[in-house]
Amino acid sequence: MPDLNNHKIVLASRPVGEPKLTDFRLVEEPLGEPGPGQILLKTLWLSLDPYMRGRMSAAKSYADPLEIGQVMTGGAVSRVSASNNPAFSVGDIVIGNTGWQEHAVSDAEGLRKVDPTLAPISTAVGVLGMPGMTAYTGLLNIGQPKPGETLVVAAASGAVGAIVGQIAKLKGCRVVAIAGGPDKVRYLTEELGFDVGLDHRAPDFAERLHAAVPNGIDIYFENVGGHVWDAVFPLLNKFARIPVCGLIAHYNDTEPRQGIDRLPILMRSILSNRLTLRGYIVHDFADQQQDFLRDVSGWLKAGKIKYREDVVHGLEKAPEALIGLLQGRNFGKLLVKVAEAG
Amino acid sequence: MPDLNNHKIVLASRPVGEPKLTDFRLVEEPLGEPGPGQILLKTLWLSLDPYMRGRMSAAKSYADPLEIGQVMTGGAVSRVSASNNPAFSVGDIVIGNTGWQEHAVSDAEGLRKVDPTLAPISTAVGVLGMPGMTAYTGLLNIGQPKPGETLVVAAASGAVGAIVGQIAKLKGCRVVAIAGGPDKVRYLTEELGFDVGLDHRAPDFAERLHAAVPNGIDIYFENVGGHVWDAVFPLLNKFARIPVCGLIAHYNDTEPRQGIDRLPILMRSILSNRLTLRGYIVHDFADQQQDFLRDVSGWLKAGKIKYREDVVHGLEKAPEALIGLLQGRNFGKLLVKVAEAG
Repeated sequence: MPDLNNHKIVLASRPVGEPKLTDFRLVEEPLGEPGPGQILLKTLWLSLDPYMRGRMSAAKSYADPLEIGQVMTGGAVSRVSASNNPAFSVGDIVIGNTGWQEHAVSDAEGLRKVDPTLAPISTAVGVLGMPGMTAYTGLLNIGQPKPGETLVVAAASGAVGAIVGQIAKLKGCRVVAIAGGPDKVRYLTEELGFDVGLDHRAPDFAERLHAAVPNGIDIYFENVGGHVWDAVFPLLNKFARIPVCGLIAHYNDTEPRQGIDRLPILMRSILSNRLTLRGYIVHDFADQQQDFLRDVSGWLKAGKIKYREDVVHGLEKAPEALIGLLQGRNFGKLLVKVAEAG
Repeated sequence: MPDLNNHKIVLASRPVGEPKLTDFRLVEEPLGEPGPGQILLKTLWLSLDPYMRGRMSAAKSYADPLEIGQVMTGGAVSRVSASNNPAFSVGDIVIGNTGWQEHAVSDAEGLRKVDPTLAPISTAVGVLGMPGMTAYTGLLNIGQPKPGETLVVAAASGAVGAIVGQIAKLKGCRVVAIAGGPDKVRYLTEELGFDVGLDHRAPDFAERLHAAVPNGIDIYFENVGGHVWDAVFPLLNKFARIPVCGLIAHYNDTEPRQGIDRLPILMRSILSNRLTLRGYIVHDFADQQQDFLRDVSGWLKAGKIKYREDVVHGLEKAPEALIGLLQGRNFGKLLVKVAEAG
């Protein structure tokens, strides 16, 4: 097999505030053949997710930052095109953290085979992948939904929020769902069946949220921060649980906000309302993957959970799409279709 | 029996900032005889605790505020001096929330008999009472100490902090304990056996704390807030647990602090370090009272837990003593000896 001409997108510079197209660079280079035990992968679907913004910064978050010149990190669904590893055969569909590139040589560590009969393979980076498991584990372990409780979730038409809301409905909660713009808000109630859909861009958003939760808020699934959290905070009930999954409104922050220091106010509310705030990432619940796959694929087959994909075509479109994701421009789980499966 | 001439201390006015002596009023009034099912109590020991400051304000916290003119709230150890209730006999020692007064007529609701053979009866409002159970339940349920972990606790010579630290030692933790002033700090290491004692008033307190936790902080038992929390926050380890039990540094706050809004900074740390912050009050774990009494009285008898009392004599001294408590002037569990047991 001749050397492949691989295309990949690397981190060109660390963004200050919003990432720009020039913070990314498309690189073309030959890809060597897989060595002993290795496999060659052809990327079919690349997942774009908010956490990627954090990896572009120098600050250590829950994972090490990317180096300048390093291929952008990302989960992808791939097809095995050559294998020196007995556990994988040519044609297998796999998922792994192979990054923003057309092809990858992998030593198979962290790769997982995808069953294409279960659901469309793109779901392996969506509802049946990291975003779905993020929703499932955070909601069930930290949110601990009980019938009759009120859950509020933002970014509710997105990859994680939509699943959080739907599982909460299955658990008997009243779901107040927040998104940006009338199309998404309509989708929340008409397609996903949430009890209330709210547009966080409405000038009277805080008042509408207040009116939408006559019994207060028992669970707030935090994946945005910013003015949504500001509106939610005064409405939290005693013993409310707040899984802290993401803070997309702050990922492009450059300067701390001046004004009233609200940290002591939050601490007093944690005390007097006996709130639980707990941060997590999906890997913290890695031992629940089988439960997750069983439950969510079951709900999916039974039509109890729906999902929506927002597909961008071509690897070269990934930078623009990630910038849009951080601005809330996607509508559903954002995917890059890198190549046809065939 | 002739009517008793009762003395009680009532809320005279709501404090702005630090309570003043004029916010309290000593009242003398006749006390009626106990009716059917009621008992008459003679207060022996009155407990003074930081939460009382909150009840003096109009803002609803976890309990309703006191009304102006209402007797100050408080737990007390009393002797039954007359009883129309078959469950209580004259001479019984009981504990209940009977408030700042020399005598009380009680319908027996919420009263619990104290076994005087277990320990000195004053411990029923100390190490074997609300403060001890606050320490026990918050540390074990939320802090979840594991051998080898580092725990930091402030107000560590006080009624709650001293028990938190000692139980953490029994659970195999390294305990870094904080108090105000050299006498208290010496007590932390020499008497209570904590690994490090630190004076939060030292100008280089934050640096000393940093040096004292080479492996970071796994559990921070939050009962003070303020500059202690500021120093602790950057040193928290991944998966650190923070039981939020009290915020005494803020109870006299009148204005929100201006400057950098650190709320988003805290939220980002909760996310990236996967912190758990959870507020609680002791009543949230009321079902663990038997476990608490069994474990802590056992440790007490075995000499594994020590306690220290700071005793003020005479009910009329209670206002000054509570003001001092909020300034950290007490050294050990603050009690008012209202009357001799005999």
